[in-house]
Amino acid sequence: MGGRTAASVDHMARLRVGVLISGSGTNLQALIDDCARPDAASEIALVLSNRSDAFGLTRAARAGLRSRTIDYRAHGSRGAFEQALTDALEAEGIELVCLAGFMRVLTADFVDRWRDRLINIHPSLLPAFKGLDTHARAIEAGVRFTGCTVHFVRAEVDSGPIIVQAAVPVRADDTAESLAARVLREEHRCLPLALRLIAEGRVSVAGERCLIDAAAPGGALVNPAPDAQE
Amino acid sequence: MGGRTAASVDHMARLRVGVLISGSGTNLQALIDDCARPDAASEIALVLSNRSDAFGLTRAARAGLRSRTIDYRAHGSRGAFEQALTDALEAEGIELVCLAGFMRVLTADFVDRWRDRLINIHPSLLPAFKGLDTHARAIEAGVRFTGCTVHFVRAEVDSGPIIVQAAVPVRADDTAESLAARVLREEHRCLPLALRLIAEGRVSVAGERCLIDAAAPGGALVNPAPDAQE
Repeated sequence: MGGRTAASVDHMARLRVGVLISGSGTNLQALIDDCARPDAASEIALVLSNRSDAFGLTRAARAGLRSRTIDYRAHGSRGAFEQALTDALEAEGIELVCLAGFMRVLTADFVDRWRDRLINIHPSLLPAFKGLDTHARAIEAGVRFTGCTVHFVRAEVDSGPIIVQAAVPVRADDTAESLAARVLREEHRCLPLALRLIAEGRVSVAGERCLIDAAAPGGALVNPAPDAQE
Repeated sequence: MGGRTAASVDHMARLRVGVLISGSGTNLQALIDDCARPDAASEIALVLSNRSDAFGLTRAARAGLRSRTIDYRAHGSRGAFEQALTDALEAEGIELVCLAGFMRVLTADFVDRWRDRLINIHPSLLPAFKGLDTHARAIEAGVRFTGCTVHFVRAEVDSGPIIVQAAVPVRADDTAESLAARVLREEHRCLPLALRLIAEGRVSVAGERCLIDAAAPGGALVNPAPDAQE
């Protein structure tokens, strides 16, 4: 990816992206829709699910995407499971792996193998509210803003260089469900945006921070505006 | 404060506020300016500094406010220092204590004595970036949003029920200084807003969360809008 620039995208093959899912795949859908733009710099070359009943697999099929289920239970160990993931990704020439609601924690081995080629979306303004149940915990903590974060994955859960964030107001009457729905709308903007920035060669990692070349077209979107005031 | 309502403010004495400072006192100035409104529900009845050279003391004098320096070094112990603070506050009938750049950590004894009558402003979106050097740490972490938080004080540093927060975008070229300046502008909005909400009887603490009665006039300000998009 190092040599990619926005200007050279037209003349290059699109970035081959693998998307890992476990569930309904709404973030996958946002990527599918964004990659359908004629000038998209990336293409979803493979969808992997660890569950055969994930609705995201149906989304992939509808979009004509190649997909596969790799079931953890069919492999003898975490290492074997992750090797199967890597084998499938490498067989398709995947250059960037996107965790989009993938509900298995990956080992340091896998993370290191895909270092700076593996991104995740997390439903909070990291470093706040790492882990699960972020929305219930944000409400419990009484914060007025939460959000979502797209970041390169590191071995420590929900950490790594931040590519895109969006802030979302928490309303006094929010439930975890209503807040999750509002944050999810921002996730559907942020994940395609992050992928676009990477595919256009505008993201570099230096000292565990992302530097974003925002001078190219679309730079204004690097910080998506939060929802309007309450 | 329990019985205060927005409607009854006109008929009540103003909430007597004590402000604790250590430095230049720009947040104190924001409170002074806000309390100068004819319909202000609070008044700054005392300014205490732990440093005799704090410029905030000059601001207090210019505004005709009563002020005092209570020097930690003049007291034999942390307990004696805090007792002197409490004595001074109680002598003036202070009902709410506001830490506005007060740079000494207070003990659990002091915090418990003023429980739910003691507020602090912290330059981050808590629970992220508790402690010192928040802006440098936010830049180091590569976050796209930081902000400020006004909260009731608990014994654990920079924790407690959140009254008001504002989100502030971090720009790619920000230094700790430029970011601090942008966050400070929001601090100057948030601290008076928090004081106003409390003085108007619109803040209650339940289960370590603040409930804000936003139905009264000004409710739209409970979540100040972040700066415009980059």
